Amino acid sequence: MSMHGTEAERALAEQVVGRFANTPDARLRTLMQSLVRHLHAYVREVEPTEAEWFAAIRFLTETGQMCDDVVRQEFILLSDTLGVSMLVDAINHRYATGATDTTVFGPFYIEGMPERAYGENMAFTPGTPALVHGRVLTTDGQPVANALLEVWQTADNGMYSGQDTAQPHGNLRGRYRTDAEGRYAIRTIVPVCYPIPTDGPVGRMLNATGRHPWRPAHLHFMITAPGHSTLVTHLFNQNDPYLDSDAVFGVKPSLLVDYREHAAGEAAAQQFGFEGGFREARYDFVLERA
Amino acid sequence: MSMHGTEAERALAEQVVGRFANTPDARLRTLMQSLVRHLHAYVREVEPTEAEWFAAIRFLTETGQMCDDVVRQEFILLSDTLGVSMLVDAINHRYATGATDTTVFGPFYIEGMPERAYGENMAFTPGTPALVHGRVLTTDGQPVANALLEVWQTADNGMYSGQDTAQPHGNLRGRYRTDAEGRYAIRTIVPVCYPIPTDGPVGRMLNATGRHPWRPAHLHFMITAPGHSTLVTHLFNQNDPYLDSDAVFGVKPSLLVDYREHAAGEAAAQQFGFEGGFREARYDFVLERA
Repeated sequence: MSMHGTEAERALAEQVVGRFANTPDARLRTLMQSLVRHLHAYVREVEPTEAEWFAAIRFLTETGQMCDDVVRQEFILLSDTLGVSMLVDAINHRYATGATDTTVFGPFYIEGMPERAYGENMAFTPGTPALVHGRVLTTDGQPVANALLEVWQTADNGMYSGQDTAQPHGNLRGRYRTDAEGRYAIRTIVPVCYPIPTDGPVGRMLNATGRHPWRPAHLHFMITAPGHSTLVTHLFNQNDPYLDSDAVFGVKPSLLVDYREHAAGEAAAQQFGFEGGFREARYDFVLERA
Repeated sequence: MSMHGTEAERALAEQVVGRFANTPDARLRTLMQSLVRHLHAYVREVEPTEAEWFAAIRFLTETGQMCDDVVRQEFILLSDTLGVSMLVDAINHRYATGATDTTVFGPFYIEGMPERAYGENMAFTPGTPALVHGRVLTTDGQPVANALLEVWQTADNGMYSGQDTAQPHGNLRGRYRTDAEGRYAIRTIVPVCYPIPTDGPVGRMLNATGRHPWRPAHLHFMITAPGHSTLVTHLFNQNDPYLDSDAVFGVKPSLLVDYREHAAGEAAAQQFGFEGGFREARYDFVLERA
């Protein structure tokens, strides 16, 4: 226990902890009692003025009120920018053995996006044409057939469909499935780096603390298959200037991919219907057995 | 620094702390860096599942969305019920010497309530008639003339005007001033104990943790006078059954008052216009020099 504060102030924390002693659910009791101890230790350490306390109340209130039911979740953004989302992610994936690394879910996922065929295009706004493909495997290297890959990324304007209501429904989003050999293929555009939304409390926090809001370019994946743990991750463009300073601390070296250039007319261009040149990124995902 | 978590998880906290190193305002830098260390230490200690993390995100979001611009401030209620408001209060009033003890502000204050004359009635809903009076003094025992006392309490139904829109405007609220001898007098009703609002996230938290929502009966005061520190406090009814278990930890022994019974027809009854019997509480407030 922190030694900041007077004896009476430290005793207050224990009085509050005691008030949670009759919580019927033991796990909730642990969560609340530990929260009180850490929260009080923080307050005793920084000794906020009443004006600072009220500024914190207002910040949290506005963060809640910035959220909508669709695509804006400012508290996830706050968790992301304080590194808490990546910490929770790390804690929940400590013992992965050979499975693909995980990263933050982020606030922009939308359920129920269109099902798309192998290699089908999901980009209805301009950008650099790209093919992202590879396989979904078990930790033994066996293909996972019929795995579901939910995929989402921003348009070239840095906004996700749903967030940017001018984009067509389902733009740069889709549900793909692996074939019998575990193969998937997504026709899309090369992701771009973009700022997280800065028009809310989190943006004001970043601005006041001299932090930039940029995320390195990435493509989101959530991959599910019976008998395996759900994999939530990104693939990052390996040459992005923000790889070392991701606003949400999401980058892991194992998740970088190269979008290699291909000229027009190659066999793959014809197979996937590219009319000119395109980029190609290849990545094999490995799912942990549940 | 807590030793919970893996080395990489502890390193993440320091990476996030480092990201705040360029905060221009030194105080904000301290507040954010200490927040990150304590928040990460909490998360490493309790190791939330992803479902628990998301439940916390939802709880905070709903807490923000429960707030309105008038009288409902669910984050203050959360701060109150976790003992944080009383801790901030204690930290900001450590060196008071002889001044009246402070307690929580609470979420139900409204600015700009009616000015009322010495002894004027502020109760327009039924209850046990009462006179609350006394003096406002300096720490040297000198009277403070023309001090402003802003006063608020619930009606007998346990709700504040504004919170309960059926009550007349300004019911059980008022701005009183001391006379040349520092005297104040408020005609009102005896406060009742009441539950804090339980129809929001804080109420669900109390219910899930086996805590009751009751506050012991009290009358709120905010007292301001030039050259003195603002005093925010309550007077508690000394026989209340919830004095030992106030849902917001606000009770201090020095703030208890007795509402003594008076029969109809006494001089004070005539002076303040009571038609029958009434209760009388007397309290002298002492303001700290600013």
